[in-house]
Amino acid sequence: MRIVALAGGIGGARFLRGLQAAAPAAEITVIGNTGDDITLFGLRVCPDLDTVMYTLGGGINEDQGWGRTGESFTVKEELLEYGVGPGWFGLGDRDFATHIVRTQMLAAGYPLSAVTEALCDRWKPGVRLIPMTDDQVETHVVIDDPEQGRRAIHFQEWWVRLRAAIPAESIALVGAGDAKPAPGVLEAIEAADVVLFPPSNPVVSVGTILSVPGVRAAVAAKTVVGVSPIIGGAPVRGMADACLTAIGVETSAQAVAELYGPDLVNGWLVAEADSGVRVDGMEVRSRPLLMSDPEATAAIARAALDLAEELA
Amino acid sequence: MRIVALAGGIGGARFLRGLQAAAPAAEITVIGNTGDDITLFGLRVCPDLDTVMYTLGGGINEDQGWGRTGESFTVKEELLEYGVGPGWFGLGDRDFATHIVRTQMLAAGYPLSAVTEALCDRWKPGVRLIPMTDDQVETHVVIDDPEQGRRAIHFQEWWVRLRAAIPAESIALVGAGDAKPAPGVLEAIEAADVVLFPPSNPVVSVGTILSVPGVRAAVAAKTVVGVSPIIGGAPVRGMADACLTAIGVETSAQAVAELYGPDLVNGWLVAEADSGVRVDGMEVRSRPLLMSDPEATAAIARAALDLAEELA
Repeated sequence: MRIVALAGGIGGARFLRGLQAAAPAAEITVIGNTGDDITLFGLRVCPDLDTVMYTLGGGINEDQGWGRTGESFTVKEELLEYGVGPGWFGLGDRDFATHIVRTQMLAAGYPLSAVTEALCDRWKPGVRLIPMTDDQVETHVVIDDPEQGRRAIHFQEWWVRLRAAIPAESIALVGAGDAKPAPGVLEAIEAADVVLFPPSNPVVSVGTILSVPGVRAAVAAKTVVGVSPIIGGAPVRGMADACLTAIGVETSAQAVAELYGPDLVNGWLVAEADSGVRVDGMEVRSRPLLMSDPEATAAIARAALDLAEELA
Repeated sequence: MRIVALAGGIGGARFLRGLQAAAPAAEITVIGNTGDDITLFGLRVCPDLDTVMYTLGGGINEDQGWGRTGESFTVKEELLEYGVGPGWFGLGDRDFATHIVRTQMLAAGYPLSAVTEALCDRWKPGVRLIPMTDDQVETHVVIDDPEQGRRAIHFQEWWVRLRAAIPAESIALVGAGDAKPAPGVLEAIEAADVVLFPPSNPVVSVGTILSVPGVRAAVAAKTVVGVSPIIGGAPVRGMADACLTAIGVETSAQAVAELYGPDLVNGWLVAEADSGVRVDGMEVRSRPLLMSDPEATAAIARAALDLAEELA
């Protein structure tokens, strides 16, 4: 079986680990969000790709869900001694090595997809991990800052530094219009038996990947099953509510299903608390959705695959 | 009093610390060798500038004479996990931060002299530290490698990886012909009461600085006192003998004095074992030259300044 998953960071990575357990023989291609990517200290950082790579490769800090296990922060502390920030982004020493390798390869002319493949040579995540695009696409957020007025800031500044505490007036994907899917993205989708949307952020993770020209149409042609990232009116993890509010969508499993729409998503898994969700043309199933441990997560993935098989 | 010193790495930095003790009220400008600079992992590394900065700023690893005190090597170990080397160059985590800041500033368009000044804002070395040039100049060494045949390698590969075990057939300063002295270099020399040559390597440290067009002539116009880096036919530290052999000069205090020559150097301090050194037109004094502790080092610097005063 060939599976394609569109993944953001922590939630997507954890779901993928469950998917591997649920379908050990499947050929899984993960199309990773790169809209969160940011250049810090002159180094290119790809938080979502790395979270997937570290999680599936056994290097993730399990407690926080991002970054490396056994991490130290000497480089960052030294940079701050030089007065060089930002201090709000948690780059550890082990993580720095990843960004140094990536930046060096990008500077040598390798596209991000080739760099990601090279990094995965070490981590052996057991999936094929492809960035959504080799072009630079960055999610920016317009806020009305009480101190500095209305301005656009990088998604990471809003998400990590401000913890989304200042409402987003709008979210813009800079560069998406001209971006091309990375090599292998459209081919993997076309060859897939099923496309899965993990419970990743529907706006700044899955939505971002779908914004790359050509991806939405390719996905829409397949059997697509999504897992709701909203349970009982609140995000399972993270601050998806702040992103949904920014685009005028209610924080509910029903509203996210409508946002994706039946032309794109054929099957929709919601939590038992959301069993009343109904969308014409979309098959909705309710079941436990908390990824509380590997077994529970694998069961969610299995339910998604079962629904896909039924819909195919 | 205005003093200019042309400095390499470890030996130069230690001498400078003695000079500060010997002349606490003097205005000291250090012109640093950048021929050893190398780009590693996409980061610009300036070993000699950093050794001076860390030594005078209190951050040096005193035992080894280079690198930071309390250093860890997490980033380097992680890079090697990715298969990314070289592993033979000892870049620690604290040190990495310096190179990240430098590389980021260079990429932003700042010249190396401005970058060095910015880094010194943190370290406050108590001297004005200027790189010999803002242009890229690199010392390369031609060797006849038993395995790979005759080839030119970066000085650091010869010095650090090979420990100079394969003889250098020649030493070339790539880029020196077109290099311009960094802003402030010629002005500092012209304004100096005395120019000192610490016991740095006469070929790849002091010699390299003198190779930048305009520097030798500016220095020659001043009262210059040098401290012999050779005691009793052997380098005090390092492998200066391998560099001298490469340019056909004997490893002796006499031969190094002749290499500099009386047109350039007016006073020459040698060790007591070398009291027989004589060069027409050069005032030679013998005294203890081992920089065994701060007091002994300060006494050497004081002797150099006394000789300069006498010659002025």
